[in-house]
Amino acid sequence: MNYKDCDMKNRVQRIIRGNQLAGARLIRLLEEGDPQGIEMLKLLYPNTGKGYIVGITGPPGSGKSTLVNSIIGEFRQSGMKVAVVAIDPSSPISGGALLGDRIRMRCHSVDDGVFIRSMATRGHLGGLSRTARETVLVLDAMGYEVIIIETVGVGQDEVEIAQFAHTSAVVSLPGMGDEIQVMKAGLLEIGDILIVNKADQPGADDIVAELQLMLTMKPTSDSGWQTPVLKTVAVKNQGIPELVDMFQRHRRFLIDTGIFSEHSFKWEFLFFKKRVMELAADKIFDAISDSSAYQVIIEDLKNRKIDPYTAAEQLSVRFKF
Amino acid sequence: MNYKDCDMKNRVQRIIRGNQLAGARLIRLLEEGDPQGIEMLKLLYPNTGKGYIVGITGPPGSGKSTLVNSIIGEFRQSGMKVAVVAIDPSSPISGGALLGDRIRMRCHSVDDGVFIRSMATRGHLGGLSRTARETVLVLDAMGYEVIIIETVGVGQDEVEIAQFAHTSAVVSLPGMGDEIQVMKAGLLEIGDILIVNKADQPGADDIVAELQLMLTMKPTSDSGWQTPVLKTVAVKNQGIPELVDMFQRHRRFLIDTGIFSEHSFKWEFLFFKKRVMELAADKIFDAISDSSAYQVIIEDLKNRKIDPYTAAEQLSVRFKF
Repeated sequence: MNYKDCDMKNRVQRIIRGNQLAGARLIRLLEEGDPQGIEMLKLLYPNTGKGYIVGITGPPGSGKSTLVNSIIGEFRQSGMKVAVVAIDPSSPISGGALLGDRIRMRCHSVDDGVFIRSMATRGHLGGLSRTARETVLVLDAMGYEVIIIETVGVGQDEVEIAQFAHTSAVVSLPGMGDEIQVMKAGLLEIGDILIVNKADQPGADDIVAELQLMLTMKPTSDSGWQTPVLKTVAVKNQGIPELVDMFQRHRRFLIDTGIFSEHSFKWEFLFFKKRVMELAADKIFDAISDSSAYQVIIEDLKNRKIDPYTAAEQLSVRFKF
Repeated sequence: MNYKDCDMKNRVQRIIRGNQLAGARLIRLLEEGDPQGIEMLKLLYPNTGKGYIVGITGPPGSGKSTLVNSIIGEFRQSGMKVAVVAIDPSSPISGGALLGDRIRMRCHSVDDGVFIRSMATRGHLGGLSRTARETVLVLDAMGYEVIIIETVGVGQDEVEIAQFAHTSAVVSLPGMGDEIQVMKAGLLEIGDILIVNKADQPGADDIVAELQLMLTMKPTSDSGWQTPVLKTVAVKNQGIPELVDMFQRHRRFLIDTGIFSEHSFKWEFLFFKKRVMELAADKIFDAISDSSAYQVIIEDLKNRKIDPYTAAEQLSVRFKF
């Protein structure tokens, strides 16, 4: 393939200059677990760490994509470059329910300052949350000042991804009734900003009141941030300037309290730790697989004479570092 | 807590005799990542490896739970003990959409030969797929001859869980139209049996034809199994005896070809490998965290002078096993 032959540093330079095609190609390499992708990411790394990462989490039907669309527009008005990573649960099984939503975002697709990337929830070598993290790094290096991660908030990977964000906004809508009770724990856990979208529908004030009541029961956060509840009507662009203003306030707050840079290091360290483990894994199994102790354990596992927990413990006492 | 004080071996004996309360308690310990749970699982292990694990995967609205309900009834008629693990995406965010479905299963809840366990898709120390696997081992030890894992098939953890199953059935329904195209890859990848539920609705024959066409494009499986397409109307119990008969045929096929026992070892080995890595991880970081090389790398990471990939590589060249 011609692309692979061409000079890596040139491609990295194109990405840093914000070339969308070059960026999209690197993201695909990373999704495929191509080692060349990692090499390019290393070269890009000095250009990362500047982007403001916003998570927007909400159930299907909450108008999340329209909301993201409006938020893009608002950030663009102040001249900021915006990228979106949409974690799309349109797995082969659940069907492409969100494809329609994606299409709505197309009004920004002729705008060079906007980059939108959908990411399926499966088929990632090394895990979805890793690919998502790497994609955010690429977008950051490309010079996007705001990087929005849009998720439906189902599953563990997704919660981990929401935690990449500097600011996590959780979307709910009127008429959710009992579901709010189920959402409660999660809202309090990850939401820096709570949004009630479709706030022109009946019951909007009820849900705002309910959310505010919940927040009074939330233990005061160590950081001192007071989670606000904002009303929006994304299709009419109502409440969007106020929401984007709140994002900016939270960002300012994180920078002033030093949380912004701590947050970044926390994720780099986790990433580093996982990577060390991956590299160690191969070495360990290379080193032990010739030993007779290992062969005995594997035979016993095969014959169900030993359980995998005990087997692992027996083997690991032999590790010397 | 009184329960924790009581003798572990006694509790294990009660689980092996099929006591549902004792089983449920152990599953909860495992979900919480309690080390005592692992100790009990070790004691139970010799009693595992007999259960037939069936995966039922389908999108919300496919009548999957009613179908599982009917399948339970059919297996019960031949006197087999049946357990269900329902992987329930009622995360705090998505809401408890499946709670209603769970209630429908209650007609079996007074039957001692049936055990139903819902499992949230998040909040599992050590990962959802690990907890699901451990739960299946407990149910197996309790003497359940058929263990059904019900999932909606969204996300990577879920696909991994579907692969625990000896037999994977994928549910679709009439009128899915274009979604079938999206489902295609996944259907071919994991389905040993394809089910068209709600087959009394218009378009049922169309979808059967479409699925059969897809199957003709599937490369012949190494095992030699021909994936069938079956029609069911779960609410009227139509097609259920034929479906359960097909499960039995696939089980027989797996045993006759030796795949059944290979499959079990494959999972034990993966489990063992993960566990070895977990145990090694702590030792590695204990061993290196005092070294000056490690301290320098962490400082560089903090100051963004090094990327996490290069940092991990620099550290791992120092590992000697």
